[in-house]
Amino acid sequence: MTETLDIFATLERLRARRPLVHNITNYVAMTVSANVLLALGASPAMVHAVEEAEDFLAISDALVVNIGTLSPPWVEAMQRAAIAANAAGRPWVLDPVGCGATPYRTRAAAELAALRPTIVRGNASEIMSLAGATAGGPKGVDSTAGSDEALEAARALARRTGSVVAVTGEVDYATDGVMVVSVAAGHPMMPLSTALGCSLSAATAAFAAVAEPMEAAVAALAAFGAAGAEAAERCRGPGHLPAELCDALHLMDRATLARRAQVSALAKGG
Amino acid sequence: MTETLDIFATLERLRARRPLVHNITNYVAMTVSANVLLALGASPAMVHAVEEAEDFLAISDALVVNIGTLSPPWVEAMQRAAIAANAAGRPWVLDPVGCGATPYRTRAAAELAALRPTIVRGNASEIMSLAGATAGGPKGVDSTAGSDEALEAARALARRTGSVVAVTGEVDYATDGVMVVSVAAGHPMMPLSTALGCSLSAATAAFAAVAEPMEAAVAALAAFGAAGAEAAERCRGPGHLPAELCDALHLMDRATLARRAQVSALAKGG
Amino acid sequence: MTETLDIFATLERLRARRPLVHNITNYVAMTVSANVLLALGASPAMVHAVEEAEDFLAISDALVVNIGTLSPPWVEAMQRAAIAANAAGRPWVLDPVGCGATPYRTRAAAELAALRPTIVRGNASEIMSLAGATAGGPKGVDSTAGSDEALEAARALARRTGSVVAVTGEVDYATDGVMVVSVAAGHPMMPLSTALGCSLSAATAAFAAVAEPMEAAVAALAAFGAAGAEAAERCRGPGHLPAELCDALHLMDRATLARRAQVSALAKGG
Repeated sequence: MTETLDIFATLERLRARRPLVHNITNYVAMTVSANVLLALGASPAMVHAVEEAEDFLAISDALVVNIGTLSPPWVEAMQRAAIAANAAGRPWVLDPVGCGATPYRTRAAAELAALRPTIVRGNASEIMSLAGATAGGPKGVDSTAGSDEALEAARALARRTGSVVAVTGEVDYATDGVMVVSVAAGHPMMPLSTALGCSLSAATAAFAAVAEPMEAAVAALAAFGAAGAEAAERCRGPGHLPAELCDALHLMDRATLARRAQVSALAKGG
Repeated sequence: MTETLDIFATLERLRARRPLVHNITNYVAMTVSANVLLALGASPAMVHAVEEAEDFLAISDALVVNIGTLSPPWVEAMQRAAIAANAAGRPWVLDPVGCGATPYRTRAAAELAALRPTIVRGNASEIMSLAGATAGGPKGVDSTAGSDEALEAARALARRTGSVVAVTGEVDYATDGVMVVSVAAGHPMMPLSTALGCSLSAATAAFAAVAEPMEAAVAALAAFGAAGAEAAERCRGPGHLPAELCDALHLMDRATLARRAQVSALAKGG
Repeated sequence: MTETLDIFATLERLRARRPLVHNITNYVAMTVSANVLLALGASPAMVHAVEEAEDFLAISDALVVNIGTLSPPWVEAMQRAAIAANAAGRPWVLDPVGCGATPYRTRAAAELAALRPTIVRGNASEIMSLAGATAGGPKGVDSTAGSDEALEAARALARRTGSVVAVTGEVDYATDGVMVVSVAAGHPMMPLSTALGCSLSAATAAFAAVAEPMEAAVAALAAFGAAGAEAAERCRGPGHLPAELCDALHLMDRATLARRAQVSALAKGG
C-alpha cells in the first residue's frame, strides 16, 4: 500500500473538494478543530442539537463524533448522526476521548463503536479500553500506555467493528484488522497542547470524505504529524503550537510532507 | 453619511465607555469573541441560562445573539434576552449562523428576526436565506454566494424587520433598507480562521452601545476589516490571525483605520 | 511563611507528580485552562455530566469549579463533584465568576461556597459579593473594585467557609482568615485577555494537589503572575498573551519566578 499511496495527492484532492465536515465534538476542541479543518482545506461545522443533527448530516460530506465532554442529549445527537451517516453512506470517525475513565463514558463509546464507525481514532489507553483490553487503567484523558501496546487491541477492535482503527502515540498506527501501517511523524511537544488529538480526528473525517478509510487514516496521521513537527520547530513552548500547526497545514507541500512523515507497511498477515 | 461619519471617533467613544456586551453565542466563537471585545475596548460576558438571561441583560449595554451551536434551551434564552433588550431599549445584534442549512436553524433565525433586532449581521447565504430569497442552497455555514448578490435580499430584510442589515463578503455592505454603505476592508485569509464573522457580530453589538445602528454597523465593519487587513499582513497562514487581529484592534489608530477601510455611500434611493 | 515557602520547589513537585485536574468550568475558559494546566505540568480533564462527575472525581487529584457559564445541570454536577471531593479528601477550588451580577449566579456561588471549598479564587467584586459585602455593584464579570478593598471581605469569607481565599487584582492576596500574603506579579495587559483569571483558578487546583491550601494559593498566584509578566513583555497587544503565558509557564525557572513575583506576609494578627 505504501508504495502506491500518494498522501500529498490525497491532500490536494481534499483541498480541491473542500468537504463539509459535520463535527459533534467537545467544547475544548471545537475552536481548534474548526481552525485545523479550515487550514487543511475543509469546511467545518459544529452542529449538535438533536433537532437538526440528521438534517445537517444530510448536507455534509463526513462526520466526526468526539465524546470529550459528553452528556445525554449530545450522545443522542451523536447516535442519530452516526446512524444517518451509515444510511447515507457517509464516512464517520469516532474519537472515544477518555474511554475507560468512567463507566458512563466507556458505555457511550462502546455504544457508538457498535454503530460501526468508518474510522476510530484514539490514544493507546482509549483504544485498549474500547477494545475491552484491560491494561493499566487509564489516567484521565491522557494516555498512560504506549501506542505499541495498543496495536493488538486496535486490530481486534478493527475486526469487530469493521472500522479502520488509528492509534496515536510516539509512533502512530492505522489498521483495518489485517494490514498495519505505521506513521512516524509529530513531535513530543504535541501532547502539551490541548485538543490536538481531537483535531486530528476531525482532520481524519475530512480525509475520509475524499479517500478510502485506510488511506484517509494514514493520510491524516501523516499530514497532521508532519505539520506538528514543522510547527514545533518554530516554538519554544506549547503556547503557539496550535497556530503554527494551522500555518503548517495551510502551507504543506509535497517535499515537507515526505520529509516529515515516515509511512511504513508493517504487516500484511492476519 | 460617509462625509459626516467619523469612525475613529466612534471607536474612541467605545473605548471610553467600555460597554458591557451580553453574548449568547456559539461554543466555537466564545473565546475569540471575548478577546475581540476586550481588544476593542468593551467588556464581554457570556451568559445563556434562562434563569439569568433577562437579569443579565438588564445590567448590559448591548446584546449579541448568535445561533451557531443552537439548541432549544439556548434559543429560549436568546428570545427572552432579545425581548428584554427591546423592552429596555438596548440594542441587539442577530447573527443567523448557518441559516438555511437545516429547517430547525432557519426557523430559529426567522423567529429571532421577527423580534426586530437592531442589526442583523451575516454572510450572503445566511442573509439571502433569512430574507426568504432562494438562491443556490447554502453549503454548511460558509457562504457560497457573494455579498453583492445578497444586497437586494438585505434591503428587503431591513425593510421588513426595521433592522440595519450587514452582509459580509469580499466587500461588506450595511443597509437600513434605503441607504446602502459599502465597506472595502479585510483580507482573503480571514475566512480561513474560524469565528471571525461571529466576533464581528459581537463587535457590532459593542458599537451599537455607543452609536446609532447604521453608524454602528459601518464602524464595526470598518474597524474589524481594517484590523483584519493589518493582521493578515503579519501572518504567513491563518494560525495567528485571531491573535494578530486582537493586537490590531487594540492598537488601531486613526491613520490605520483610514488607510485600511474604504467606506462609501452607494445609494440613497429606495 | 514567606521565609519558609519555596514556591519553585512546589512547582517542581507539581511537574513531577503531574496531577489530574478535574475541571467543571465555563465554555470560554476551557481551552485556555487546559493549555495552562498542560504548560504547568498538570493533566487536565473537562468533565461535567452528572452521569460521570462523581466517578471522574474519584480518579482525579483535584477539582476546579467555575460558574462562568452556569446552568442548572452544570450546577448539579458541580455540587456533586464538590461533595465527592470533600468525601474523598481531595482539594477543590471555587471560582465564583460574575458573583453578584444576577440573583441566580449569586445564589449558585453561595451554595457552592457553603460546601466549603479548599480555596476560593475571584476578583474583588466577586469576593465582596460572595462575602455578602455590598460595595459598588459589580459590572458584568470584570471587577470594578480594587483587590485592596476586598481584603476584609476575603478574610470574613475565609473564616466563614474555612477556605483559603485568593483575591486577584493589581496586587493579589491570599488569606486563610488570619494570615494574609500578598503577591505582586502579573501585568496590566492580563485583564485584556479572556479567561486568564479562570485559568489561574485551574492552576490553583493543580497546586492544591501537591501543597497545603495556603501554599498552593500563593504558589499559583506567584507562578501565574510571573508567567504573565514574562509573557506580556513579549507582546505588543493582548492577542498572543495566552500562548506566551503558556510558554512562560512551561519554561519557568527559579530565577524568573523569584524576579517576577514578590511574595510578602502582610499580617498574622486576627
